[in-house]
Amino acid sequence: MPSRESEPGSRGFIVPIGGAEDKISDRAILRRFVDLCGGPAARIAVLPTASVLADTGSRYVDVFRSVGAGFVCVIPTFTREDAESEASLEQISDCNGVFLTGGNQLRLSTILGGTALAQRIRKLNAHGVHVAGTSAGAAFSSEHMIAFGDSGSTPRAGKVSLAPGLGLINRIIVDQHFRQRDRIGRLLTALSYNPFTIGCGLDEDTAAFIGPDDTIEVVGSGGITIVDVSALEYSSMAEAGEGEPVELIGVRLHVLAAGSRFSLSSRKATPAPRKAPV
Amino acid sequence: MPSRESEPGSRGFIVPIGGAEDKISDRAILRRFVDLCGGPAARIAVLPTASVLADTGSRYVDVFRSVGAGFVCVIPTFTREDAESEASLEQISDCNGVFLTGGNQLRLSTILGGTALAQRIRKLNAHGVHVAGTSAGAAFSSEHMIAFGDSGSTPRAGKVSLAPGLGLINRIIVDQHFRQRDRIGRLLTALSYNPFTIGCGLDEDTAAFIGPDDTIEVVGSGGITIVDVSALEYSSMAEAGEGEPVELIGVRLHVLAAGSRFSLSSRKATPAPRKAPV
Repeated sequence: MPSRESEPGSRGFIVPIGGAEDKISDRAILRRFVDLCGGPAARIAVLPTASVLADTGSRYVDVFRSVGAGFVCVIPTFTREDAESEASLEQISDCNGVFLTGGNQLRLSTILGGTALAQRIRKLNAHGVHVAGTSAGAAFSSEHMIAFGDSGSTPRAGKVSLAPGLGLINRIIVDQHFRQRDRIGRLLTALSYNPFTIGCGLDEDTAAFIGPDDTIEVVGSGGITIVDVSALEYSSMAEAGEGEPVELIGVRLHVLAAGSRFSLSSRKATPAPRKAPV
Repeated sequence: MPSRESEPGSRGFIVPIGGAEDKISDRAILRRFVDLCGGPAARIAVLPTASVLADTGSRYVDVFRSVGAGFVCVIPTFTREDAESEASLEQISDCNGVFLTGGNQLRLSTILGGTALAQRIRKLNAHGVHVAGTSAGAAFSSEHMIAFGDSGSTPRAGKVSLAPGLGLINRIIVDQHFRQRDRIGRLLTALSYNPFTIGCGLDEDTAAFIGPDDTIEVVGSGGITIVDVSALEYSSMAEAGEGEPVELIGVRLHVLAAGSRFSLSSRKATPAPRKAPV
């Protein structure tokens, strides 16, 4: 469950990114995140926990600096003990943006879950600090996280595994590398368990900037597939045998690109303002 | 995420029961639930959604009446359309206790999830209405629900499937028929994903009466196995291959029987007061 906000509307942005975001040319997503954190006034903490590569943290330090962040640090958190360290807690509390790198989302949940650092990130976000995560970091940001699953476009019983995530937000289930890895089937499977959640399939180099008013704005070069099952008339998940296709009747789906918006409260999508003809 | 309480401490009890509760002789658990709802003043709504048997609802009407409930009704909710019906919403709002029967928890989540009736139950509970559930009904009561999984005592990767539940409470993962079906392995697997949750393994004919202060009191003839992974030093879930045993270092475990208590906030267990020698 998300931490309580100090007052309604004071929560920081939550920014799940579909992975493989541009770090070289336009860098639209990372630039937008830095701008959100105040550009030269931005103080960004990078958590490379999900990754097993040694240079993941430092690569993000370089790219965040290159798009104008005033201050960037890496908080090396690779064990549960690290995630209880007083020094890390102080360091992160001194930042106004937190960035979770890609890797394996089960590293994030097994290392950070239930620790003082996870609790601090939730509190900071509730009080205005912006939290972004790419790929594994995006999956982990919500309460219900896809841990792993099969590819393919048909939802099949038992072909996706959910796990508790960081819980910054509760209403969405994120899937990343969405179009690139053919994941609509597993996202539909995840949603078929309990239609109260909204699916958010993020293509690579595409981000959902979720504001304190729970409105998503799409940023980046790909699309976001919103799967709204609130009007679902029927799900056969309770009866389907393992591996069998799951029947779903009444799914609503939106594919949104840069500049489009989707309100998680009203469940209304708004297209990007049309560009004037060139 | 649980609905916000009107004021702290005003939430109703949440009562997950491990299944197969005594309905004939002592009926300790169901009697206690009726007493909690006011005995002759109790107004209990039975939701037989999880079950496919025609007489599940009426059996509970009889047993609740037999232990002194003033009023009991069945709200027949077998489709998502039923769960949007104005009549059902009115009927349930007129009760001070809600009971979810056993059956299949995926029927509960697929039929009730995200509907007006689910929302109403959450709101009612936040404002003092007591909600009990047995077996499937117990599994569904929490935010993270075990949908299905394998038996056995060793935690194994991928051998349990979680799904979003009703979310009356967020900190526990319930497992039912616990000792009878040898489920400690799958509960440990569920907890190994993200140690922020507390495991609550309920034997048959055993219930956790969770008060508004988040303290569990054990009622019934069996035991409750509390699995506390808050001090976990290590979980290998992120690295384990499918079906492989998961390493867990630093699990705390309590086995509690009738009269014992466990505080979900302080994570402290208190044994039942010792009986005077006979």
